Amino acid sequence: MDETIIKELISKSVSAKKHAYCKYSNFPVGAALLCEDGTIYTGCNIENVAYSSICAEQTAIAKAVSEGHTKFKAIAVSSNQTENVISPCGPCRQYLFGGDWDVIMTKPDMTYTMMKTSELLPLGFVQNPFLPTAKK
Amino acid sequence: MDETIIKELISKSVSAKKHAYCKYSNFPVGAALLCEDGTIYTGCNIENVAYSSICAEQTAIAKAVSEGHTKFKAIAVSSNQTENVISPCGPCRQYLFGGDWDVIMTKPDMTYTMMKTSELLPLGFVQNPFLPTAKK
Amino acid sequence: MDETIIKELISKSVSAKKHAYCKYSNFPVGAALLCEDGTIYTGCNIENVAYSSICAEQTAIAKAVSEGHTKFKAIAVSSNQTENVISPCGPCRQYLFGGDWDVIMTKPDMTYTMMKTSELLPLGFVQNPFLPTAKK
Amino acid sequence: MDETIIKELISKSVSAKKHAYCKYSNFPVGAALLCEDGTIYTGCNIENVAYSSICAEQTAIAKAVSEGHTKFKAIAVSSNQTENVISPCGPCRQYLFGGDWDVIMTKPDMTYTMMKTSELLPLGFVQNPFLPTAKK
Ligand SMILES: [Zn+2]
Ligand SMILES: [Zn+2]
Ligand SMILES: [Zn+2]
Ligand SMILES: [Zn+2]
Repeated sequence: MDETIIKELISKSVSAKKHAYCKYSNFPVGAALLCEDGTIYTGCNIENVAYSSICAEQTAIAKAVSEGHTKFKAIAVSSNQTENVISPCGPCRQYLFGGDWDVIMTKPDMTYTMMKTSELLPLGFVQNPFLPTAKK
Repeated sequence: MDETIIKELISKSVSAKKHAYCKYSNFPVGAALLCEDGTIYTGCNIENVAYSSICAEQTAIAKAVSEGHTKFKAIAVSSNQTENVISPCGPCRQYLFGGDWDVIMTKPDMTYTMMKTSELLPLGFVQNPFLPTAKK
Repeated sequence: MDETIIKELISKSVSAKKHAYCKYSNFPVGAALLCEDGTIYTGCNIENVAYSSICAEQTAIAKAVSEGHTKFKAIAVSSNQTENVISPCGPCRQYLFGGDWDVIMTKPDMTYTMMKTSELLPLGFVQNPFLPTAKK
Repeated sequence: MDETIIKELISKSVSAKKHAYCKYSNFPVGAALLCEDGTIYTGCNIENVAYSSICAEQTAIAKAVSEGHTKFKAIAVSSNQTENVISPCGPCRQYLFGGDWDVIMTKPDMTYTMMKTSELLPLGFVQNPFLPTAKK
């Protein structure tokens, strides 16, 4: 990964945070997803009036896939949390899993930790229970 | 709701279906969401390599909110299911809940049933457990 | 439904609330589920250190099914909310859907509203996208 | 962890599989959870008529917590998958996260891989967005 594109992704993930709809948690998160063809999609967390919410990472992926993109190279994630980099939650790690691409987890001071999607879900579950071929 | 805009929403929800990523279920769903200012966002269902998926309705809402829209007038939903109109799942009804706007549930022959978001979740839960004011 | 069993279910759902693990929301919920053979399973809401939680209704159903019960007659739900009866969230309505049995939604003063599972999810989605027969 | 208790947990997770309600995936999973006081709770996966399901690990935890247990020492997970050990999905890893205890991931031949809950969610998210203290 080129440092210039990493910086661009981080910067876009920071901007995406401003649309976060998180009046319950007051914990805005932004994400910027780089597709294989170079297109970048951004996302923010969207909290629901009830128990569930959509994470920034999921929003970015949903936007990309609904526009026809299914191969990704990297995603940057930003929050206002200063002590640790913001890392994807368990459900998001499952969404990101498959392929093996870069997750750039940042702090507000723009420092970051980069890990592969597979490293974030060690021994990740590849066999799909809903896959027709799993049903024999 | 004007019949012209209903037809446009239905038509866009049908088109949105083509990006559905549903290789496990082979059950594509499309949605078209009308924001209060007239902007339309589309979405499709996105299935995950493991247990969870994002519905077409959630994709459309995530796209709209991440672009700064939070007030909606109507959403059309389409699938290939011929016997009954396609209706939102329970989780989606919770996402759509709040405000009271129109859900246009269609069949492939373009016929539809229209209900209010509140009618789809009777006695819907308004009190939010995560709301600070609920914590006294 | 016999009034005696309704009262017993309500009473057990109130007791089940005391095990609620809800330090984030401080909104305890309890449920009591009546199986077809008369067995009663209770549940409470269990909040997670991160974004997701298991509702009282889901806990009760999970306990029952994991002990071999899959047919239900009624479920009572209790909370500390005084203005409205506590009603199942959208995701729970989807879990309860199938069959057509009674949901007893209560207030702390023991008054209640009773509705069928199908009434709580009008036009509920029966066709399962993961069902092999849906895949033609 | 004593090898005797590991074997008992594995054996109980295998037995728990028989109550799996998984007619859509035909992929039964069982779990056995050891609480700090020595009590063991079992669970199986429970698939829903629609998009969501409860995993075996979540079922076991929900049972334990709803009976008053909130501290755990180990969980064993079993499936019929022969090529790889069965590992928890992303959402379950988030549920298991917090504390630092053992996850015993097995194959049908009773061989297993054991990892800590923290190792399964590296850089796991500790800061809770719903935590009151996060709301300043
Ligand atoms: Zn997430
Ligand atoms: Zn849905
Ligand atoms: Zn619920
Ligand atoms: Zn799981």
